[in-house]
Amino acid sequence: MTHRDPVLMGPGPCNPYPEVMEAYARPVLGHLDPDFIALMDEVGDRLRQVFQTTNQLTFAVSGTGSAGMEAAFVNFVGPGDTVVVGVNGVFGGRMCDVAARCGAEVVRVDAPWGAPIDPNDLIDAHPSPKMIAVVHAETSTGVRNDLATLGAKKGDALLLADCVTSLGGIDLRIDEWGVDIAYSGTQKCLGVPPGLAPLTVSDRALTHLRETPQSWYLDLNMIAKYVTGGDGARAYHHTAPISSLYGIHAGLGALLDEGLEASFARHQAVGDALQAGLVDRGFELFAAEGNRLPQLTSVWVPEDRLPDGATEADVRRSLLLDYGVEIGGGLGDLAGKGWRIGLMGHTARMRNVQLLLASLDDILV
Amino acid sequence: MTHRDPVLMGPGPCNPYPEVMEAYARPVLGHLDPDFIALMDEVGDRLRQVFQTTNQLTFAVSGTGSAGMEAAFVNFVGPGDTVVVGVNGVFGGRMCDVAARCGAEVVRVDAPWGAPIDPNDLIDAHPSPKMIAVVHAETSTGVRNDLATLGAKKGDALLLADCVTSLGGIDLRIDEWGVDIAYSGTQKCLGVPPGLAPLTVSDRALTHLRETPQSWYLDLNMIAKYVTGGDGARAYHHTAPISSLYGIHAGLGALLDEGLEASFARHQAVGDALQAGLVDRGFELFAAEGNRLPQLTSVWVPEDRLPDGATEADVRRSLLLDYGVEIGGGLGDLAGKGWRIGLMGHTARMRNVQLLLASLDDILV
Repeated sequence: MTHRDPVLMGPGPCNPYPEVMEAYARPVLGHLDPDFIALMDEVGDRLRQVFQTTNQLTFAVSGTGSAGMEAAFVNFVGPGDTVVVGVNGVFGGRMCDVAARCGAEVVRVDAPWGAPIDPNDLIDAHPSPKMIAVVHAETSTGVRNDLATLGAKKGDALLLADCVTSLGGIDLRIDEWGVDIAYSGTQKCLGVPPGLAPLTVSDRALTHLRETPQSWYLDLNMIAKYVTGGDGARAYHHTAPISSLYGIHAGLGALLDEGLEASFARHQAVGDALQAGLVDRGFELFAAEGNRLPQLTSVWVPEDRLPDGATEADVRRSLLLDYGVEIGGGLGDLAGKGWRIGLMGHTARMRNVQLLLASLDDILV
Repeated sequence: MTHRDPVLMGPGPCNPYPEVMEAYARPVLGHLDPDFIALMDEVGDRLRQVFQTTNQLTFAVSGTGSAGMEAAFVNFVGPGDTVVVGVNGVFGGRMCDVAARCGAEVVRVDAPWGAPIDPNDLIDAHPSPKMIAVVHAETSTGVRNDLATLGAKKGDALLLADCVTSLGGIDLRIDEWGVDIAYSGTQKCLGVPPGLAPLTVSDRALTHLRETPQSWYLDLNMIAKYVTGGDGARAYHHTAPISSLYGIHAGLGALLDEGLEASFARHQAVGDALQAGLVDRGFELFAAEGNRLPQLTSVWVPEDRLPDGATEADVRRSLLLDYGVEIGGGLGDLAGKGWRIGLMGHTARMRNVQLLLASLDDILV
């Protein structure tokens, strides 16, 4: 089969940084090899810089972003615990599902898709929750939710943030904002193929760590002895996905070489350019002004600009197969009527904005 | 840092097939891209051939082998279910832990490490268990347990087999032997870096599938709609680890091009040669004769052959850093006194047997 190489402007995965693909090709080492342990330690150091935290327990979970979500819940929440969850998109809804499977009492706080959640609604939802959970950057809508206000007002609750789409693309200050537990994914603004879930846990959260979480695979008591074992021997838990760790190590290196602020500015510039270009062409932006993500743009597709008889899905398919550009379909109200367009990691380049807009000019009527 | 490329003769990971590393370098596609869906379907077809099964639900779990173990339990076992577990090594013990976290009543049947489990002991342990679980090839001891007898006598119980170290290296007949649920890992006899867990589930087992397993990430109800969605649209569950799927696709291709029987014969030949060579040199084999795995050899190290003042760990370290060969330390009674030596996947070559024996001749006194 011919190997197509589309420009990946969907909601993730993005195109990986070239350095990442080189790293994947490196010889496999054993999971207890001293050079691999050193690399894993560097991954932790680099993740701390990107998360803007000093949390010791900061590492990459051996699964995709959703495994990070599950690790963040099962280790801290059990039967009878109250968890307040903000829902203004798919991933907030997923958090409710995961928390409920831990036996938690879920207090669900909805906000309209496309609008941000008012942090005060979460604070006021319950007098003494064990945890307040919210998505920082909703991949299903392109909306940013406010973490800093939640951190300032959380009281004794643990603040859990889904940072799958935010990490590396927009400002995220774990320590300064008072986020206790945060997870991400590799295939968004980190510019790495999917497969790992960066996770960071505050010392305060660790005092709430469950002794025997319902998941063995994601049990932080045991994983911590492997990933942050200090200078001594590391206790084997499960075999780390070696090549994927090479990948995230290189991706984080590329990001930090560029600089966090420069990466945020790059994502903002290309997002602004794309959103302006789409509005010029008759698209209506879905996410509320003031809380729009630059790295994930959601839009209503103007029906009168679709080619005769074509649906929005036909246009996406033509973009993918004829023009070599992948974008994502809409979810919720946007399903069948809108698109989600990512500009994340290595894909967040002005040339890709130009390519997509020029291709749309070619296809639309 | 210089990239060392040791020969990986530990208990896994092995060295990947060259085709696998080429596949990792392929351009990333989206997880709903038609070419990626086609590749995922081929991974399923190839896994069915290697598992020797027609089970429709056969795919690679997005995590390492231990995630496969957890998926195998959480989807079928819940509070109050009786699970009989055979334990003659680390991984049988891990099964007890995972089953207990699902709320199961665990009936643990121990056999001495190094010896196989008598299948009748498992059959007789409980009159009507929900599940009988056993490790096919114990990575901690190098022993093969009998699955065929268990399958013939299981009655209404579901038979679950850990095939992490067996798949691709020794004969494994899921359908013929009556195994209902089996999982594996990529980094053993499949010759692929760690990161995925092949899983196969019989139609009979699917009638016992729990409606809402405690794990969202490993929920087979939802995953099945993505990995075996037929010709129609695939329902997104989580973002598949694209590059890792390329890797297993290529590794399974290499294995099937060689042929299953040829692969088994190759593993047997190199294992026999290694075991004979070690006995010649004064090592005592740990696993009981008749149930020794060719792909994982466990041995007592002859103390009188260690260099003056050196421990077995010193010799392993010298093998790794001076000779470029990784082998594994012992577990249980073998800790500090024995080794585990793997010859798996691409590593199962006579040249590697020669290299290790020659290196030992150089080091030992």
